[in-house]
Amino acid sequence: MSGPDHTDTPSGSYVALCGGVGGAKLAYGLAQVLSPGRLTIVVNTGDDFEHLGLHISPDIDTVIYTLSGLANPETGWGRAGETWTFMRVLSDLGEPDWFQLGDGDLAMHVARTHRLRAGESLSEVCAHVCQRLGIDHAVVPMSDDPVRTMVSTDEGRLAFQDYFVRRKSGPAVSEITFEGAHVAQPAPGVLAALAHDDLAGIIVCPSNPYLSVDPLLAIPGLRAALEARRVPLVAVSPIVGGAAIKGPTAKIMRELGVAPSVGSVAEHYGALLDGMVADDADAQALKDAPLAVPTWTTGSVMTSERDRIELARFVIGCCHQLARAANADRHAGGAV
Amino acid sequence: MSGPDHTDTPSGSYVALCGGVGGAKLAYGLAQVLSPGRLTIVVNTGDDFEHLGLHISPDIDTVIYTLSGLANPETGWGRAGETWTFMRVLSDLGEPDWFQLGDGDLAMHVARTHRLRAGESLSEVCAHVCQRLGIDHAVVPMSDDPVRTMVSTDEGRLAFQDYFVRRKSGPAVSEITFEGAHVAQPAPGVLAALAHDDLAGIIVCPSNPYLSVDPLLAIPGLRAALEARRVPLVAVSPIVGGAAIKGPTAKIMRELGVAPSVGSVAEHYGALLDGMVADDADAQALKDAPLAVPTWTTGSVMTSERDRIELARFVIGCCHQLARAANADRHAGGAV
Repeated sequence: MSGPDHTDTPSGSYVALCGGVGGAKLAYGLAQVLSPGRLTIVVNTGDDFEHLGLHISPDIDTVIYTLSGLANPETGWGRAGETWTFMRVLSDLGEPDWFQLGDGDLAMHVARTHRLRAGESLSEVCAHVCQRLGIDHAVVPMSDDPVRTMVSTDEGRLAFQDYFVRRKSGPAVSEITFEGAHVAQPAPGVLAALAHDDLAGIIVCPSNPYLSVDPLLAIPGLRAALEARRVPLVAVSPIVGGAAIKGPTAKIMRELGVAPSVGSVAEHYGALLDGMVADDADAQALKDAPLAVPTWTTGSVMTSERDRIELARFVIGCCHQLARAANADRHAGGAV
Repeated sequence: MSGPDHTDTPSGSYVALCGGVGGAKLAYGLAQVLSPGRLTIVVNTGDDFEHLGLHISPDIDTVIYTLSGLANPETGWGRAGETWTFMRVLSDLGEPDWFQLGDGDLAMHVARTHRLRAGESLSEVCAHVCQRLGIDHAVVPMSDDPVRTMVSTDEGRLAFQDYFVRRKSGPAVSEITFEGAHVAQPAPGVLAALAHDDLAGIIVCPSNPYLSVDPLLAIPGLRAALEARRVPLVAVSPIVGGAAIKGPTAKIMRELGVAPSVGSVAEHYGALLDGMVADDADAQALKDAPLAVPTWTTGSVMTSERDRIELARFVIGCCHQLARAANADRHAGGAV
């Protein structure tokens, strides 16, 4: 693992919108090439749930484990070198064991739950954990208020983890809603990062648009701040060659009647999107049917640390290019 | 480990009053020689506390682990083959790590806390766990209401675990009180066992009289039921040769101005006591200064499974002998 190199990127700060495993990989890359003051990672909490009395924040933990180097490289979620004694005994006790809780991971959930009950906000808990684990970049939950992703399926309306983990994304999805989102406030750190003088770009990580990014966009204050942006918003497509790299994105898109393609992702983000980064595998398809926004292709499948860093640099470069073009337009148009 | 042998003991059922490690060993012995319907183990919950948002019942867990064969034979508390990943991560997160929570042990605490929050009583949780772990004998908390042992010391008034674990029983004790005891009700199973038609004896296990047995005696309804007993109550002395086999019993007795001796233990239990079982090491001292109640000596230090079973048989025999003597007295006196 090479040390971070913060010297070779255009100036300015960035906000990354992020879900779990795939998004966390790009967030890791961004953290290697941007110094701590220049990156805020805003994480989906629609997957959060209460299980056995514990508050579990799967995407936040995945991002924290990935950034701190504690992640299990095999799975992308959970901790490397994890032990599973708790789960074995939990099963012996006849308690629900469909959600895997590693012994080390459990410390995160117990500490978080205890601190939340004592009155800390999720942002405060998150900042504390990051500080303890040596993460210098800002990792902020999208909101300190509860937002719960609900999946309407052919087997009924299911809470996200019930759908995703317990039923292994099996039921066919007809609608996805975000309970609490309409009254949720963006976490303080989110609005501060988006209002930063030095903001140079907003990056939507290659996370599931429907399950991991839409919860953020469903928060009115967060969507409004994104709509009022003066900097480019660039998304990295989680769809590569008509399939999802991981998880049920493509399946869900088909069930929602949308072709699993880069074009569909771009259309989904609509007017929020200023540029799209897709995989080389989609280059020909994108040439045949160009998107409405500037599009770049590169190797977007991150299998190594180097891949993460290169994709991070690439996306930052795209933001920079869009910003320069917008600037040139303004000068050419004689705007004030 | 030999199988239980329930054939060779006088008839009738028994109630054992029990604290942690030492008491649990005798409870185990009793469970080997009495069939399930003939034994109720009433366990101290004055040591219970809330830690990191989890409800922890140290004595109940020690009894359950001991009876189910899951106990760590080295320590007497906790589980054999335990792992400690949770504690390592908890320390990394800067959370309090003075109370050791094994990964497997934690499943007990998480499940118990979750069930209590959902409205189950401690008795119900305890019965459920016993059923899952194959414990057929009744293990009941002394009360489903909160009772908290508080220790007044030269370093201030301390919650029990703060005194016992965090400060390793270091501060000098001046008084021990049981918060909540005066309004606590005995758990339903306690009164039922003490009211059983077939009751043949009450056994006070070799637990700390001040810290482990007094909490039970501080519950008015439990003390009243013991005072109204029609069967012998026999205690096994936790003091052997002027010292405690384990833990701070002797130290606390000295701090409270009481000589650490079998006689002091007998005096402490006062009119509740019908007979005392002490160790052979105290035979001469007890001959020199006999107690006010019938006294037997035997090998009372339980280092093997055989020791536990032999002591259990011995104590049951003492109860039987007292009952026969009382019966003979009644007949001799011509009582109705």
